[in-house]
Amino acid sequence: MRWLRYSAPGVDETYGMVEGDRIREVRGTPFDQWEPTGRMHDLAAVTVAVPFMPRTFYAAGLNYARHIREAAERRGEVPNLPAKPDMGYRAVNALIAHDAPVIIPSDATRIHYEGEIAVVIGKTARHLSEAEALSCVLGYTIGNDVSERNWQRSDRTFWRAKNTDTFKPMGPWIETDLDLDAAETTVRLNGEVTIRFRTNDMLFGIATFISAMTRYLTLHPGDVIWMGTDGTSPDLKPGDVVEVEISGIGTLRNPFIGEAT
Amino acid sequence: MRWLRYSAPGVDETYGMVEGDRIREVRGTPFDQWEPTGRMHDLAAVTVAVPFMPRTFYAAGLNYARHIREAAERRGEVPNLPAKPDMGYRAVNALIAHDAPVIIPSDATRIHYEGEIAVVIGKTARHLSEAEALSCVLGYTIGNDVSERNWQRSDRTFWRAKNTDTFKPMGPWIETDLDLDAAETTVRLNGEVTIRFRTNDMLFGIATFISAMTRYLTLHPGDVIWMGTDGTSPDLKPGDVVEVEISGIGTLRNPFIGEAT
Repeated sequence: MRWLRYSAPGVDETYGMVEGDRIREVRGTPFDQWEPTGRMHDLAAVTVAVPFMPRTFYAAGLNYARHIREAAERRGEVPNLPAKPDMGYRAVNALIAHDAPVIIPSDATRIHYEGEIAVVIGKTARHLSEAEALSCVLGYTIGNDVSERNWQRSDRTFWRAKNTDTFKPMGPWIETDLDLDAAETTVRLNGEVTIRFRTNDMLFGIATFISAMTRYLTLHPGDVIWMGTDGTSPDLKPGDVVEVEISGIGTLRNPFIGEAT
Repeated sequence: MRWLRYSAPGVDETYGMVEGDRIREVRGTPFDQWEPTGRMHDLAAVTVAVPFMPRTFYAAGLNYARHIREAAERRGEVPNLPAKPDMGYRAVNALIAHDAPVIIPSDATRIHYEGEIAVVIGKTARHLSEAEALSCVLGYTIGNDVSERNWQRSDRTFWRAKNTDTFKPMGPWIETDLDLDAAETTVRLNGEVTIRFRTNDMLFGIATFISAMTRYLTLHPGDVIWMGTDGTSPDLKPGDVVEVEISGIGTLRNPFIGEAT
């Protein structure tokens, strides 16, 4: 099932189920109760919204070997693979929807994309074993963890390098049925493929992270976990368009524009 | 004005204005519209709730000189004062109310308190100068940034060192009228004063942080910024009670207990 959040003329933001090129509108949310309203919309005619505002926005960060090796080489350092699944955070102020523009601040000098799978939590969870871990997952969506690499090096924290407004595209929808082992992540810059990797080729998998996290904390419906990216991005500039496709989910596309000054 | 969130027999969680030892119940929230319901409660008879669930939970981290110097000395390192206001994050799963217990995990070995002032954002804000910065502030409450120091050193991120469930007491209420320059923070462990510092003796003040942050991001009603702590905590153990008092706001008190195993 594909859950889209959208608005349309005469329709405030609502959820619907994507069925081919049509949307079956519902009352309620996929995190709780819902029922069809009986109305249908054309997918091409609606404005796509961020699929949900996370309660807590988790991000694994370093979780693919090639990404870590290439970043270390660029800095002339020895790659340092994480020894255990330590989870990080991103901030909801930065979220934007599919098709919305990423605004590059006028003082930014080195903007990169990071295409990632995002795990959407659907049930309250604590103390899950790895075998039970995926039982709390509602589905999957796509994230682009846009980063300013010079701020990422110069600042003590990731607040502006990773969480400047518009730096966190997420969407286009939540896919509840995914064969994770078959999924492939492909990033295209202005229509050309720049990176392709097996989505599940993670240092620490989704079940491993959820089990480790729920030893200490409660996951809640509407929490999200971004699982990290592989490879390296070229430097982006105003006018670029980045598409992150994950086979079995869909494609998240966002134009990059300059800040009005 | 003092905004308390509370429940009472026959009253689901609601807001009220504290007036001496009584509470004037309201419909609505201090972030939006509100009006008195006409009902009053005794302050001593209600259960205090977390004053609000932050949309984004910011935390300054290192922001008082003595705290940074003492922590560096303990590790045999040279103190490294931040050169600019870089903001960090905490997670809402960890929030608990005044009087609720902090649960120390069975494998935790070094638990510390950190008494802090918390700035409650009341209005949407972007691109504020330092002179304008406090115009988006609704009021102030108190936080205890409970930390497991060994995990803080061993883990790549602060996820469990700072954000284990129950590690973020906040409350008891939001005070909208505060003379920040006159305010003093006092921490008591089992009734004995262990730390006292001038609340506004920060490396980077509240207006400086808000102005720097809103250059890149939008602050929203219900966001919160914890401003950091001074001094050092002794190691805490089950049975301890920690009170953080900020003159002009009130006292946040929480017992510490061991995890049931």
